[in-house]
Amino acid sequence: MQDDALLDRRVRLLGASSPLFYNRPLRLVRGEGVWLYDADGKRYLDAYNNVAHVGHCHPHVVEALTKQANILNTHTRYLHEGILNYGEALTATFDDELTMLHLCCTGTEANELALRIAKACSGNNGVIVTDFCYHGNSAAIAELSTALLGPEGIGANVRMITAPDPYRQPDGAEAAAAQFGAQVKGAIDSLAESGMKPAALLFDTVFATEGMPRVPAQFIQDAVAQTRAAGGFYIADEVQPGFGRTGENMWGYQRYSIVPDLVTLGKPMGNGHPIAGVVSRASLTEDFGEKSSYFNTFGGNPVASAVGLAVLQVIEREGLQKNARKVGLYLQDGLAKLAEKHEIIGDVKGYGLFLGAEFVTDRESKTPATEATRTVVNGMRERGVLISQTGRADNVLKIRPPMPFSTENADLLLESLDDCLAAL
Amino acid sequence: MQDDALLDRRVRLLGASSPLFYNRPLRLVRGEGVWLYDADGKRYLDAYNNVAHVGHCHPHVVEALTKQANILNTHTRYLHEGILNYGEALTATFDDELTMLHLCCTGTEANELALRIAKACSGNNGVIVTDFCYHGNSAAIAELSTALLGPEGIGANVRMITAPDPYRQPDGAEAAAAQFGAQVKGAIDSLAESGMKPAALLFDTVFATEGMPRVPAQFIQDAVAQTRAAGGFYIADEVQPGFGRTGENMWGYQRYSIVPDLVTLGKPMGNGHPIAGVVSRASLTEDFGEKSSYFNTFGGNPVASAVGLAVLQVIEREGLQKNARKVGLYLQDGLAKLAEKHEIIGDVKGYGLFLGAEFVTDRESKTPATEATRTVVNGMRERGVLISQTGRADNVLKIRPPMPFSTENADLLLESLDDCLAAL
Repeated sequence: MQDDALLDRRVRLLGASSPLFYNRPLRLVRGEGVWLYDADGKRYLDAYNNVAHVGHCHPHVVEALTKQANILNTHTRYLHEGILNYGEALTATFDDELTMLHLCCTGTEANELALRIAKACSGNNGVIVTDFCYHGNSAAIAELSTALLGPEGIGANVRMITAPDPYRQPDGAEAAAAQFGAQVKGAIDSLAESGMKPAALLFDTVFATEGMPRVPAQFIQDAVAQTRAAGGFYIADEVQPGFGRTGENMWGYQRYSIVPDLVTLGKPMGNGHPIAGVVSRASLTEDFGEKSSYFNTFGGNPVASAVGLAVLQVIEREGLQKNARKVGLYLQDGLAKLAEKHEIIGDVKGYGLFLGAEFVTDRESKTPATEATRTVVNGMRERGVLISQTGRADNVLKIRPPMPFSTENADLLLESLDDCLAAL
Repeated sequence: MQDDALLDRRVRLLGASSPLFYNRPLRLVRGEGVWLYDADGKRYLDAYNNVAHVGHCHPHVVEALTKQANILNTHTRYLHEGILNYGEALTATFDDELTMLHLCCTGTEANELALRIAKACSGNNGVIVTDFCYHGNSAAIAELSTALLGPEGIGANVRMITAPDPYRQPDGAEAAAAQFGAQVKGAIDSLAESGMKPAALLFDTVFATEGMPRVPAQFIQDAVAQTRAAGGFYIADEVQPGFGRTGENMWGYQRYSIVPDLVTLGKPMGNGHPIAGVVSRASLTEDFGEKSSYFNTFGGNPVASAVGLAVLQVIEREGLQKNARKVGLYLQDGLAKLAEKHEIIGDVKGYGLFLGAEFVTDRESKTPATEATRTVVNGMRERGVLISQTGRADNVLKIRPPMPFSTENADLLLESLDDCLAAL
């Protein structure tokens, strides 16, 4: 009843199209660690929220926020040690070549800026992206977010390639590699036909929107090499995979053994505080600084810097990357066991604590079981586990919990999923 | 010495072109109310910072931030009362027609979204802006920020008009009005020649970047009427003038007695917390919702909403709009008196606690005294008052203090300025 009244107020203020999860919207009032609580005190296991990266309302992060908000919060046109302490700690987690930093507030702003840098430094205008991606909601980024606006909405300077999906191309790894290389070459040729050259190759390093296909490293290396040969830069979007989530590495791009020119960061960076950024090779930042300028009113202010540093400290102190690896493997194993029992699970994919289970109507045809996936997402909520769906056909369960997720949490998720699938 | 070491670290991390105020950078460690403190405990009167709108580290705002950050901070795809309480309180401060809200994180994001809405709802692509404006740093907004990239950097869909400046056109108010109307017509005709129509007329309602010329209401009304007749919408950028700063009104656009279709908000909204938004007519938000979609990960989360509401409460409880009017008039009067004594002050402009003093080498030619303005800004800092410069020739002192600025604070500013000008 009260939820209905809130929903009415919400529709009047934000509009009927303001996105809400679930067939029956969920009202949350409190969060702690991996748990979220509704107004009746019922608790939900959060297996979706990568923003609350180190756990909802982590006391160390809230303390850093509170302390600095009481002391000073102003822009970076004054000298302050906070941004330097944070920025040095952050860039130290990257490969040696990546030493410089711009801070902003959202992943969209990070991708906007990375693209501006790539265009200014290359002198080129073209962008190569995958054909089902999301990188943000500004005009320039929406125009290349192929999953948002569809092929007809993309910009004249954007060319699309298809990330190979080993699940759907099981016998053709080598053929797919060749095809992928040919696609990048085709994109560069197509830009040339319009009098353009590539400024950047941009992709999410876990291909989250595509449904997390495990793209082989050689494909990435080949695409990057071709882009660089044509004068463009490689921008790795780590907004979703970053900060140790993939378990084996701090950054998703490290899986492919090739160092990007620019890396964009967002969501988990401030555990809910709006922090985002671009990490880059020094040559690019310096060249951009000579050609253009960038200032962000809130980016890197003392509060944002204190919060960002606190998040890095928690990841380190609590061994969260190692935990993501350990619990991620445990969860993957559990999903694989469920797949033995439930025919609907066609594939288990992803890395660390960023996993996907692809649902198909039958394993031969691999037809996406989109409706069943939606039923399972809603069913999991009824069973107290929050989860979402992704992929081209919205048929991949998206499992992306806060990083302190334990094997006990994983057991609860697996039991609930087993129960949900049995009830289908 | 320690400042030099910080500066070295900063150049290595952020680059030599990352903007810093003053010939000798200022290192700040603490803020309280209208005061900022350096590492040696020296205090500075802040007469520049509109972000710390209700005063640096205001206890009511910090308390709201701390309290909510301890309870829950997650995205708006779950139901939460916080965004509704805030949004309803916020939209209640606008004219009756403006009832709906999108929340995001930065003024750039707000202008990006307003433009997307205007384009989607009008079906048009053209944008009319003034010829020395700044609305943000994303690609689409930089392309219309004529003060940032210059006339050669503007987009193919952008047309420029010149805001009239009564100081430089003293005898031609009517002529300027006619000329301004002709300019808007010219912009619309020019778009038509390229097969385009206007989606929006966008301007900052105090023309801050232009140096705060007091643009007569009839000019605005005429420009808006022409834009609407051609199918476009009126976007009022309130990122700088909003939240009572201009004294007489809560919103800068209210001076012109014409209600915008979309209003963009930013900097002061969260007193330093990254909050921004777009307030709109219901018809626009609903139409946009049917044609497109928008989601912002951090926008409107429970912490941002609690902070935003606390800022509104402080403005109301402490009578800050009234204070802006009272102290603004006092300060304006003081600047006018200084102008009697110092020939360099050619004009005093602006409204409330957003004032400008235009410096000229002589009053006949009105040649901008740009270098002297820079000297005064640096001289004020040495005297413990923080202030900046703006305008086409960077020759207008930009006075934009936190809103609790008192007449005593104004006296200190005026005395320091008198001293600075005497020392020129």
